[in-house]
Amino acid sequence: MAGNTFGDLFAVTTFGESHGPAMGCVVDGCPAGLPLDIEIIRRDLRRRRPGGPGSTTRIEADEPEILSGVFQGKTLGTPIAILIRNTSQHSADYDKLRDLYRPGHADWTWEAKYGVRDHRGGGRSSGRETVSRVAAGAVARALLAASGITVRAWTAAIAGIEAPGQGEAGFDLDEAEGNPLRVPHRETAGRILAEIERLRASGDSAGGIVTCSAAGLPPGLGEPVFGKLDARIASAMLSLGAAKGIEFGAGFKAAESFGSEQNDRPAPGCAPAVDPRRPAAPALPDGVPDIRYRTNNAGGVLGGISTGMSLEFRVAFKPVPSIMRQQETADRRGIARQLVIPGRHDICIVPRVVPVVEAMTALVLADLLLLQRASRV
Amino acid sequence: MAGNTFGDLFAVTTFGESHGPAMGCVVDGCPAGLPLDIEIIRRDLRRRRPGGPGSTTRIEADEPEILSGVFQGKTLGTPIAILIRNTSQHSADYDKLRDLYRPGHADWTWEAKYGVRDHRGGGRSSGRETVSRVAAGAVARALLAASGITVRAWTAAIAGIEAPGQGEAGFDLDEAEGNPLRVPHRETAGRILAEIERLRASGDSAGGIVTCSAAGLPPGLGEPVFGKLDARIASAMLSLGAAKGIEFGAGFKAAESFGSEQNDRPAPGCAPAVDPRRPAAPALPDGVPDIRYRTNNAGGVLGGISTGMSLEFRVAFKPVPSIMRQQETADRRGIARQLVIPGRHDICIVPRVVPVVEAMTALVLADLLLLQRASRV
Amino acid sequence: MAGNTFGDLFAVTTFGESHGPAMGCVVDGCPAGLPLDIEIIRRDLRRRRPGGPGSTTRIEADEPEILSGVFQGKTLGTPIAILIRNTSQHSADYDKLRDLYRPGHADWTWEAKYGVRDHRGGGRSSGRETVSRVAAGAVARALLAASGITVRAWTAAIAGIEAPGQGEAGFDLDEAEGNPLRVPHRETAGRILAEIERLRASGDSAGGIVTCSAAGLPPGLGEPVFGKLDARIASAMLSLGAAKGIEFGAGFKAAESFGSEQNDRPAPGCAPAVDPRRPAAPALPDGVPDIRYRTNNAGGVLGGISTGMSLEFRVAFKPVPSIMRQQETADRRGIARQLVIPGRHDICIVPRVVPVVEAMTALVLADLLLLQRASRV
Amino acid sequence: MAGNTFGDLFAVTTFGESHGPAMGCVVDGCPAGLPLDIEIIRRDLRRRRPGGPGSTTRIEADEPEILSGVFQGKTLGTPIAILIRNTSQHSADYDKLRDLYRPGHADWTWEAKYGVRDHRGGGRSSGRETVSRVAAGAVARALLAASGITVRAWTAAIAGIEAPGQGEAGFDLDEAEGNPLRVPHRETAGRILAEIERLRASGDSAGGIVTCSAAGLPPGLGEPVFGKLDARIASAMLSLGAAKGIEFGAGFKAAESFGSEQNDRPAPGCAPAVDPRRPAAPALPDGVPDIRYRTNNAGGVLGGISTGMSLEFRVAFKPVPSIMRQQETADRRGIARQLVIPGRHDICIVPRVVPVVEAMTALVLADLLLLQRASRV
Repeated sequence: MAGNTFGDLFAVTTFGESHGPAMGCVVDGCPAGLPLDIEIIRRDLRRRRPGGPGSTTRIEADEPEILSGVFQGKTLGTPIAILIRNTSQHSADYDKLRDLYRPGHADWTWEAKYGVRDHRGGGRSSGRETVSRVAAGAVARALLAASGITVRAWTAAIAGIEAPGQGEAGFDLDEAEGNPLRVPHRETAGRILAEIERLRASGDSAGGIVTCSAAGLPPGLGEPVFGKLDARIASAMLSLGAAKGIEFGAGFKAAESFGSEQNDRPAPGCAPAVDPRRPAAPALPDGVPDIRYRTNNAGGVLGGISTGMSLEFRVAFKPVPSIMRQQETADRRGIARQLVIPGRHDICIVPRVVPVVEAMTALVLADLLLLQRASRV
Repeated sequence: MAGNTFGDLFAVTTFGESHGPAMGCVVDGCPAGLPLDIEIIRRDLRRRRPGGPGSTTRIEADEPEILSGVFQGKTLGTPIAILIRNTSQHSADYDKLRDLYRPGHADWTWEAKYGVRDHRGGGRSSGRETVSRVAAGAVARALLAASGITVRAWTAAIAGIEAPGQGEAGFDLDEAEGNPLRVPHRETAGRILAEIERLRASGDSAGGIVTCSAAGLPPGLGEPVFGKLDARIASAMLSLGAAKGIEFGAGFKAAESFGSEQNDRPAPGCAPAVDPRRPAAPALPDGVPDIRYRTNNAGGVLGGISTGMSLEFRVAFKPVPSIMRQQETADRRGIARQLVIPGRHDICIVPRVVPVVEAMTALVLADLLLLQRASRV
Repeated sequence: MAGNTFGDLFAVTTFGESHGPAMGCVVDGCPAGLPLDIEIIRRDLRRRRPGGPGSTTRIEADEPEILSGVFQGKTLGTPIAILIRNTSQHSADYDKLRDLYRPGHADWTWEAKYGVRDHRGGGRSSGRETVSRVAAGAVARALLAASGITVRAWTAAIAGIEAPGQGEAGFDLDEAEGNPLRVPHRETAGRILAEIERLRASGDSAGGIVTCSAAGLPPGLGEPVFGKLDARIASAMLSLGAAKGIEFGAGFKAAESFGSEQNDRPAPGCAPAVDPRRPAAPALPDGVPDIRYRTNNAGGVLGGISTGMSLEFRVAFKPVPSIMRQQETADRRGIARQLVIPGRHDICIVPRVVPVVEAMTALVLADLLLLQRASRV
Repeated sequence: MAGNTFGDLFAVTTFGESHGPAMGCVVDGCPAGLPLDIEIIRRDLRRRRPGGPGSTTRIEADEPEILSGVFQGKTLGTPIAILIRNTSQHSADYDKLRDLYRPGHADWTWEAKYGVRDHRGGGRSSGRETVSRVAAGAVARALLAASGITVRAWTAAIAGIEAPGQGEAGFDLDEAEGNPLRVPHRETAGRILAEIERLRASGDSAGGIVTCSAAGLPPGLGEPVFGKLDARIASAMLSLGAAKGIEFGAGFKAAESFGSEQNDRPAPGCAPAVDPRRPAAPALPDGVPDIRYRTNNAGGVLGGISTGMSLEFRVAFKPVPSIMRQQETADRRGIARQLVIPGRHDICIVPRVVPVVEAMTALVLADLLLLQRASRV
């Protein structure tokens, strides 16, 4: 409630400041008996690490240590604590920021709230905080995998340059995982790369859009009316520092269209339109037929409950606020100042956000999967 | 956690099915000593009632009864229960829907989750459920008003027809409150009205966009990292049945732009760009200067914490799924069927959603306002 | 969190002041598909009503109305709101208490906390508040019954006069339900009755002890380490206004004894010592044997988890503080005053607390039963 | 909710198995700006360490590392993670317990719940788990100290040998801190020591009682009706593995007495009966007088709200179940077996529980202190 715990039954608490000794998380509520290999945590952490074009040169080892909750390769039902030491802090870079508020950052709002702040690298408002989320998300993904649920995200657009969407010509999810920009279309990735080089030269930064798709969801996930699947996903995504918007399925376009266009028609017996991965025989209550839909304008959710179609949503991220240009700002005395930000920064955070979006989605789904167990007598 | 409670310190639990005996809410955590007149609840309920063009002809009295928590005109600090009887149910209209799933509605997902459903008017997935939220929101608004915070929403667009935005020529918030479509521009309201008449004739429905602006917020509201101001607002908005997306400040446009354009410059001593209503001397911690920003691309939130600028966001709503045309669907045996929906329905829900958006925003802010009291020693 | 909600998955929010318009509760999280007849709520409410020796002459009809969550005799999975109107308030009785603090009551602490209070009949600190708990508890009991769990409580002692305990000669649970004092031994009931008459004559009041026994619990209920079965029961019992202590199994006597005496010996294959009602084949995980214990010093809980033996505990209640004698006290100006309390009061609350203890126990067990569903993959 | 988090606003999550790599906690919600020296954590951990008569010979360094949340000696308002490595595990001692259930321990119930268990030293059901609570409690105590609140506990009795109580002749709290048994009376300590030596010789163990007293509480702490001060303390105490009962103030004796004896008389202007440490001018709401009571049968709480008198309660602990005698038990195949427990064990845990009782009390009070900030407009 103080804001660092996410989830009800599958609950994650994260801790750590960017330039403090360590980051980490405690996953409370992971069911007992789940096989858990630290290697799956390492893999997701690697996917989040910098290294691609446009990413910071602060490169952490991000080696996770499981402190509790796992015994002989299986979860115990007790809290799973995961520790990731910070090892590559260059805190001196931030000395000159002690009394200056970086535009577009949370420096001043943090002080307005708490009266104090760790000025080194943004403290806990740093993107580094998401390393804890990715570690926790890897545990959630292991739980989801045991139920046949997969979560995939990719870079849909950077700086207004859009890649083909799912179902459009050229869309290639393997390509997304193969290139460091996580763009599912090689040619678009090339154009974005050129734009990033242009921005590097001009000291500027770019925003972009991440699309996420979760397949294999059983129908029935989501807790009406305030714990709806989409409400929880929206909360998860807007908890990411740079997120400025989210839309599900047809999203903002739905607001411009008509009911006759938007309603997805239930299609008994038909092959699913979007998602071949949904299990053939979902665990439906007695007497409830297995329904698919011919289209998925809803993005996989009706009335806040999963339809069994893929969950589909897009998240907008603003440009990295740390740009390599002189900016106007204010200092702790309230006086106007000029600022050039030192340190190592991403030009575009979007490719690195992809595994974080997946992790947060996995956390939401793992929680709802457990909550769903209590829905019927 | 079962999904019908919203908020931590200022916590609201709602109950009631569309065609059951009553709707209502329990507000737990409203501080003691707040003057509370039932008339303010009545007023907000009236604003939510149908009556305008494009709205259903089911018109409820929506008379609230305060059952507890208020004594001699002031809150006691105990739970405030508010009851609103359903009086105008035409449940027989829904008999033929007992075994049919309406496209675009939560009929089947609800059964997939719970195994049972109240088929009369959507039960708890009905828009009628929001009457409880508006009643609770009125209490929250009373608390906010005592701190100088005001929340206003309006219809920004219907069926793709957009009204001028805040700060643009012709924008008139008084007009929004004066016309039944809640459009802040009379000429646009006329064009939308014509479109709604066209849709009525063709048996179709429309979606739209609501913009919300909250002014007078002290800097510091929001609980990083998972209880961020924007994360909570996003959760609140996506908990509305027809919502398909949300964006804050520059929103999705931010994703296409550059850091040099997006960063709002801190402006010590300057007049605020957007919000003249912010209190002159906010309660900032010792040693923290009062900062304003020249622009508000952030929409009033940085790092999940309020900046003191107006909180600004837009919510996309899909068209009402109950259209007056024959539609393909499936029945409880899983067999394809044709359906014509009976009953009384809105053609466009957007104008009636405006007070609901305000209510949910007020609930978020009231909760964060109380949580903020615990942030510093 | 503001204190009026109990439970996580099976969560109850209560509302209502003693002399306000109504009492009530919202049960959120009751699984869908549970048959629920309002008659079972009526029955538990009747058991709580006054009428026996030593009880107040304020007699409410206590007629419950189910406002939501039940459709065609079954739960919907949505919140179950239950309303109980107050009809027999004699608020004028309390006019002279407006500015006086009754000794042993929460009058002054309530003001110290909230600054205001409803002085009529104790407001929300009144024992009348428990009517909401009993209504909610009846729903929980219906859920438990479907799992073969039963909860029974009785008067173990009043004013130091003890009835025989479970397993002792003369103990007769049917007798407890048959006599208005809920004492499981007719002769003891007679002696207590005489003592109550003596107290009535002298204007005094008495305390006592309630014993509770829950049978049929599957092993495995309880959420270590802070949501232990006994921790939750203790919290539930001490949330009753007059409760001053609780002990499980051997309780305070265990503190005086030795490990060689206290350890209950696991007894594979043996008949259970205390509880013949435990299901023959509990749902144990694969590879875990069915163990019983030869004794039940533990009171049915080890490490905060149910053992499958009966849950056994005793709760101490202080005497009713409203006595019919002149007492020293203070008024709102902080001045010493003499007070004779008007109104209608119980001489001993213990018999009426019995169904409340059962209700709170049922609420704890229903919640843990649902939580247990999430404990294993 | 999965059971490893305690508190609402001042919320602690603990993790760690007895023989895993580490124990630890995350304190979320500690207000920003609190001076916090790791030395105070070390000091409380030292008080919990074994070393006295009757305690285990497993002696851990218990060196805490603060991983986050503290910067330049002050809390940041972010989660405070504290890590304590396990260094003295002798896990091989437990090999023979892999398939045996120790009587009086949670071995079998843990398996019945989770299907798996870490058999080494009890895993998370070990008393070692409390090291995390003591670390978190030290942070809570720092917060309380800033408000003038102190929490003290001591050994009231072991094996039925009782020390003089507070206010009785010979009671000496300094003595309690000075001797390893934490008994506030030297002569009683000597008699208990002799009894422990006798138990050691006979391979047996003893239980006992801890008394706790918290002074300096402002009136008004506690969240009626389910988050009452005593309900929360009861929950905290019964969350300790060996606790079997708790009583407040007059406790079980109150159940045998009369209202005319039990009611504490409000005493305007009088000197407090028990607690000279209460601040002279508590922060009472306008118009509410400062009331003390002549006696403290209530134990400092009325209607679940602190009275401003000392909070007083006693907790009963059962004997350590690991005795050095042959015991009957069962194995994983459900077959009767004889068992002699290996390893290093306490004969009486009570002296080491004293700082744990203090820590848990501090956690409850810190949380209620923050919650109280939201109680009035």
